[in-house]
Amino acid sequence: MTEFELIAKLKPLLPTNDFVVTGAGDDCAVLELGAAGTQTLLKTDAVVEGIHFTADTDPERVGRKALARCLSDVAAMGGTPVAAVVTLALPKDHDPERVFAIYRGLGRLAAQHQVAVVGGETTTNPGCLLLSVAVVATVPRGRALLRSGARAGDALFVTGELGGSLSGKHLDFEPRLAEGRWLAASGLVHALMDVSDGIAGDLPHLLAASGRPDAPLGAELSKSAIPVSRAAKLRAREGDTAKPAIVAALTDGEDFELLFTVAPGDAVRLLDGWKAEFPSVPLSCIGKVVPRPGMFLRGEDGMRPLAAKGYEHFG
Amino acid sequence: MTEFELIAKLKPLLPTNDFVVTGAGDDCAVLELGAAGTQTLLKTDAVVEGIHFTADTDPERVGRKALARCLSDVAAMGGTPVAAVVTLALPKDHDPERVFAIYRGLGRLAAQHQVAVVGGETTTNPGCLLLSVAVVATVPRGRALLRSGARAGDALFVTGELGGSLSGKHLDFEPRLAEGRWLAASGLVHALMDVSDGIAGDLPHLLAASGRPDAPLGAELSKSAIPVSRAAKLRAREGDTAKPAIVAALTDGEDFELLFTVAPGDAVRLLDGWKAEFPSVPLSCIGKVVPRPGMFLRGEDGMRPLAAKGYEHFG
Repeated sequence: MTEFELIAKLKPLLPTNDFVVTGAGDDCAVLELGAAGTQTLLKTDAVVEGIHFTADTDPERVGRKALARCLSDVAAMGGTPVAAVVTLALPKDHDPERVFAIYRGLGRLAAQHQVAVVGGETTTNPGCLLLSVAVVATVPRGRALLRSGARAGDALFVTGELGGSLSGKHLDFEPRLAEGRWLAASGLVHALMDVSDGIAGDLPHLLAASGRPDAPLGAELSKSAIPVSRAAKLRAREGDTAKPAIVAALTDGEDFELLFTVAPGDAVRLLDGWKAEFPSVPLSCIGKVVPRPGMFLRGEDGMRPLAAKGYEHFG
Repeated sequence: MTEFELIAKLKPLLPTNDFVVTGAGDDCAVLELGAAGTQTLLKTDAVVEGIHFTADTDPERVGRKALARCLSDVAAMGGTPVAAVVTLALPKDHDPERVFAIYRGLGRLAAQHQVAVVGGETTTNPGCLLLSVAVVATVPRGRALLRSGARAGDALFVTGELGGSLSGKHLDFEPRLAEGRWLAASGLVHALMDVSDGIAGDLPHLLAASGRPDAPLGAELSKSAIPVSRAAKLRAREGDTAKPAIVAALTDGEDFELLFTVAPGDAVRLLDGWKAEFPSVPLSCIGKVVPRPGMFLRGEDGMRPLAAKGYEHFG
């Protein structure tokens, strides 16, 4: 069973209530707690030794990454993170210095984004280190950027560059918080999510959340428009077994960039505004939403179907 | 290093901000998010196979326990839980039915208390199952029940019965949510926490949070007033190596009862109100707060010092 099949089967077991505006299935949950002008976001995420980092990874970067992943989800809603709580599960024979280093790295990123760390639970975990973070954030009422809302004809955009994250970006990426807020405030974005499992893996979720059974959505991507990272290109040269750089850009995990759609008539206005606001952050129009299911990649050799073989954490 | 020493060393690494009313160190953090009349509580907690349950434990009770522990912390602030998110870390060879059963148990308790489950993250954990839950709750502004606030002379109360939780209560306890809200609304409570590491282990935290360096607080407990559970008595009869029941009542972990103090002049009023409101839930006055450090147990043989040997999850 894949992670997504598991989640689909679990969803009916999850109760809801009148406080819930958007429940499980988007980058964060949206709650209505009655605050003036804002709604509340809630998200949890975990990193595990051997999967998201290794025993040799600098522990400050491990702590940083655990929080940064949650902040990327807040960014993907257009939110502002407020507070975080941490569960740190440690092997019995752990080195206390490693724990302090994890908290230093996490605390430094928190301070950088004015996030309070308001609780730290420690427990024992036989075998390996696991770090789970939950974040509360705020978003202007009704302005949360959801995965649903994309329409046929929309232009598809992605921030930054894609692929090869394992070379280092997966530990040191900057969560796109300012960018997410700016996009939410623009009022132009129809649907948005962060890319953590590769565009090929994540775009189907945005399309599924936006389409209807009687009006499914798909996407056509332009191969030459995909912003392939330098890391993906370097890794592609490492040997015959390496992924071609374009494949890495489409399928590698942990890019933590923002993927979103806007009406085609708003695309130029959005790009111009972005360049003025974020001159050092690439923004690429990589294709469009189409009124038929499936993903397609248009290259020099014509249009080919693209499989949803994103990185899965589980399955 | 014990859990408490570790937390004390970590605290300076945790940034704060203007949203934080009460940070790490109480049962929940208290946040001011600008909601009309209420503040927001945030808490995370984890259960791990081999520590908080075994591979044989009914998975529905595992899921229930993971949420119930967080709800007990919300109860200990006088709060009302709103929403929960779950991180479920599973061995690679897990049985999907076990996962569904965990969520069924968790979801049933959530529904019972009108808590929405708004996110479920799954990841792999080599070796064992780990379940981390984070809960958002609300509390009337300024009414959160903190661990600080106890005064010399206060009467000490505890709900329910203590000890022997391992016989089953640790899985099936009812979080004292209605009781916590009623106590907060009474306006009579000076300081309150939930008892998860035994009174002997937890009371020192309440006393430390309430005392000042120049005016430390201690407690005198009356041995005959400690509400020893039937389970603790039964376990005490199991053999020569078993803990005496009174020791179990004072030091066993995972009671999840509420421990609190009120002014001595309010004690009778509080007890009378309690009996009318919660006729089936015992409430015991077990002693008083005194203006000198240390804990003392008064028995037939006079007054003896009581060591803070509560159950520690870590150390």
